[in-house]
Amino acid sequence: MALDDAALKKFGFIPREPKDAINIDPLQTGGKLTEEARRALLEWGDGYSVCDFCGGVLDLIKKPPIEELVHSALPEFLNTDAVRLTHGARESKFAVMHSIAKEGDYMVLDKVAHYSSFVAAQRARLNVVTVPHSESPEYRTDAEGYATVIEEVINKTGRPPALAQVTYPDGSYGNLADVKRISDICHSYDVPLMVNGAYSVGRMPIDAKALGADFIVGSGHKSMASSGPIGILGVREEYADTVFAKSPTHPAKEVELLGCTVRGAPVMTMIASFPHVVQRTRNWDNEVADARWFSSRMADLGIVQKGERPHNHDLMFFEAPVFYEISQKAKKGRYFLYRELKERNIHGIKSGLTKYFKLSTYQVGRDNLKYVADSFEEIIEKHRTA
Amino acid sequence: MALDDAALKKFGFIPREPKDAINIDPLQTGGKLTEEARRALLEWGDGYSVCDFCGGVLDLIKKPPIEELVHSALPEFLNTDAVRLTHGARESKFAVMHSIAKEGDYMVLDKVAHYSSFVAAQRARLNVVTVPHSESPEYRTDAEGYATVIEEVINKTGRPPALAQVTYPDGSYGNLADVKRISDICHSYDVPLMVNGAYSVGRMPIDAKALGADFIVGSGHKSMASSGPIGILGVREEYADTVFAKSPTHPAKEVELLGCTVRGAPVMTMIASFPHVVQRTRNWDNEVADARWFSSRMADLGIVQKGERPHNHDLMFFEAPVFYEISQKAKKGRYFLYRELKERNIHGIKSGLTKYFKLSTYQVGRDNLKYVADSFEEIIEKHRTA
Repeated sequence: MALDDAALKKFGFIPREPKDAINIDPLQTGGKLTEEARRALLEWGDGYSVCDFCGGVLDLIKKPPIEELVHSALPEFLNTDAVRLTHGARESKFAVMHSIAKEGDYMVLDKVAHYSSFVAAQRARLNVVTVPHSESPEYRTDAEGYATVIEEVINKTGRPPALAQVTYPDGSYGNLADVKRISDICHSYDVPLMVNGAYSVGRMPIDAKALGADFIVGSGHKSMASSGPIGILGVREEYADTVFAKSPTHPAKEVELLGCTVRGAPVMTMIASFPHVVQRTRNWDNEVADARWFSSRMADLGIVQKGERPHNHDLMFFEAPVFYEISQKAKKGRYFLYRELKERNIHGIKSGLTKYFKLSTYQVGRDNLKYVADSFEEIIEKHRTA
Repeated sequence: MALDDAALKKFGFIPREPKDAINIDPLQTGGKLTEEARRALLEWGDGYSVCDFCGGVLDLIKKPPIEELVHSALPEFLNTDAVRLTHGARESKFAVMHSIAKEGDYMVLDKVAHYSSFVAAQRARLNVVTVPHSESPEYRTDAEGYATVIEEVINKTGRPPALAQVTYPDGSYGNLADVKRISDICHSYDVPLMVNGAYSVGRMPIDAKALGADFIVGSGHKSMASSGPIGILGVREEYADTVFAKSPTHPAKEVELLGCTVRGAPVMTMIASFPHVVQRTRNWDNEVADARWFSSRMADLGIVQKGERPHNHDLMFFEAPVFYEISQKAKKGRYFLYRELKERNIHGIKSGLTKYFKLSTYQVGRDNLKYVADSFEEIIEKHRTA
C-alpha cells in the first residue's frame, strides 16, 4: 500500500466496541484495569517512562517503587524467593525452559497445557512428553501420571527429564490439579517443577512453597488487572542464579531477560492495581461460590459444565446441546448465539460457537451473572417458541 | 514484607514527576505519545483487549486494522518483505539470532552496538566478534572493518559468521554508519545483515532494501510514539520462513514469537500514532537542521559535540569541560547540573553527569531547544560569577 493520506486515515484512534459490555471471556475478566491503573496508564503511557528513574536495572528502581514490588511484595504475595517481571506467562516459561534445560533435553507437560507451553518448549528445542488427562467429562490430570512419564524418559534416555510443568488451573476446563502431589513425585526424581499460574496468580491465593513449585509463572494482563504485556516469574532460591544469570560482559544485566523487560506503562499499572489484586485474592471463596451458582443455573437450562464438579475456579467449560439444536434452524445459523448475546451487551463467547464454549465468572458479580443466566434462558425460550 | 494495609498503601497510583518537563533524554524524545495514542491507551488499556477480535493469530486481526498495519503499512514504511510485532528491538534481535544462527556460531557486532545486542547474542549462545570504531572524537564504525572480522572468523572456523549486525545510528554518538557498503561486504561473504534501527525507524526515512538490510529492527517505545513494550521486525523474504517458522504442533503459531507478542494496548497506540509517525519521518531534514543548530549553540559555550560533524541525527554526545570545572566547586558537586536543569523544567541529562552526556533534540522544537541552550548559558554564567 502507498502510504498516502487515504491509507493513513485507516489508522489513528480506533474505538473499542465491547469496552462497556459484560465480558465473560476468560482472557478478559482478570485483566480489566482498576481505576488506579487507568490513571497510571495515562500518567506513564509515554514510551519508556520509567527509564527516567533507572540506574541500569529496572527492578532496582526505588521511586516509583518497582524494587519494592519485585523484591518484597511479589515474593511475599506468591511465597517464592526471587521474582522478576517478564512480558507474559509464556515469556516466563520460555526463560525457565531455556536456562534450566539444554537443547535436546526432555521436559514434561500436562496434556491440558496451554499451546504456548508447547511452543515455548519448541523454541527452547526441548523434547516434550505429556501427562494425559482423564478425558470427558472431568478432564482431570492424574498426578501419578507424572511418575509414569518420568519413568518412561529415564528408560529411554538414562536420566530424568530436565523440567516438568503443571497448569494451575488449565485454560480449557479450569481444573485445579493436585500440585502438591505432583511436586512430591517430581522432586523424588530430582525433577524441578514449574507451575503455570496464568489463571491463578492474582485471582486466588497462591503459596508457591506450599505447592512445592520451583518456578511460578503469572500473567499481569490475564489475572493481575494490568495493561499488557506483563508477566511475572518466581523462582526458588537454588535456581535463581541459573535463571537470572548475569551477562559476562554487562554484569548488571540478566541474560534471559535481555537486560530489561517491561520498560513502561505495564509495570506502573501492575503497581497501581496491586492493592486491589491482593485484596481480591482474599475474597476467592466468594468467587468460587459465584462460579458454582452459575454452573448450577446453567445445569437447569440443560447446559452441562465439564471439568471438576463441584467446580473450584471461575473458568468453566460448557456443553450446550440446546444451543447447538437451535443453531441448526436459526436464521443466522451458528452465529445466532453471538448476536443474541451482543444485543444484550454480553461479550466473550466466541462468534460461531454454540455446542461447546468456555467462560469466566471472575469479578463479574452475582447481579451481572444473574443477568447473563437470565439472558441464556430468554434466548432458549425465544428460539423454542419461534 | 507483610502485605497489610500499610504495605499496600505504598502501591496504587504513583504520580510521574517529569511528565510535563522538556525531556531531552534520547530514550524519551521519540516515544512520547501522540494525543491519538493517549486516547487509544485508555480505550484499549484492559489486559488483553485486542484478543476480543482474534481468531488465533494476532497479526491477522482485521478489525482493528492490525493485519493492515503489519502486513501492508509497515512493510511499505520500511521497504521490507515480512513484518511482525515484538516486545522491543532487543526481542527482535534475539528472535533473528536464535533462528538464523545455531549455538556456538559466530556473529559480528559493531563495537558501538547497544548492550542488549551483546546480551541477546549471549542468550542465543553465539560467539561475538566486534568491528572497532575510530575512537575519539568521531567514533565512526569503519565499514571495511566488517571484511576484516569476517575474514578472521573464516580463518579461525573455516566458515563465515552466521550473521552480522550494524547499529543505525548507534545509541551513544548518533552516528549513521555506511550501511550500504557494510551490506555489500557482508553479502559478498554470504553473511546476512541485521540493521538495528531502534533510533531510526519512526524518526527518519528508512529503506531496508536500499540499505541492503536482510533484517530491520525498530522500537515502538523508543521511536514510534508508542506505549511500550513494543518493537517491530522486518525480514527479507528469503529468511521469513526461518525466522517466522510455524510450530509443528500448532501450525498457526510462530515459534520465535511464542505464538503471540504484544497482545493489548501497545499495538493500538502504534496504530494510533502511525499517521503522525509516517509524516514526521518526512520532516527529517528539519530535525537534522535543529540538531546541527543546537550543536553549534553548544560549541559557542565550549561544549563540544563528539561523533560525526556536521551531525546527521538528533542523538548527540557532548563533552562539557565547563560543567566539569563548575562541579569541582559547586555546592551540590556533580549534581548541580541536574538540579539547575530541573529548576528550569528540563529533564533528561542523567543526575550526576557533567563532563560527558548525551541528549536528543528530536521533536523538541526550535523554541524549546533555544530555551535549553539559553538555560545552559545562564547556568554557566551564574556559576562563573558566583
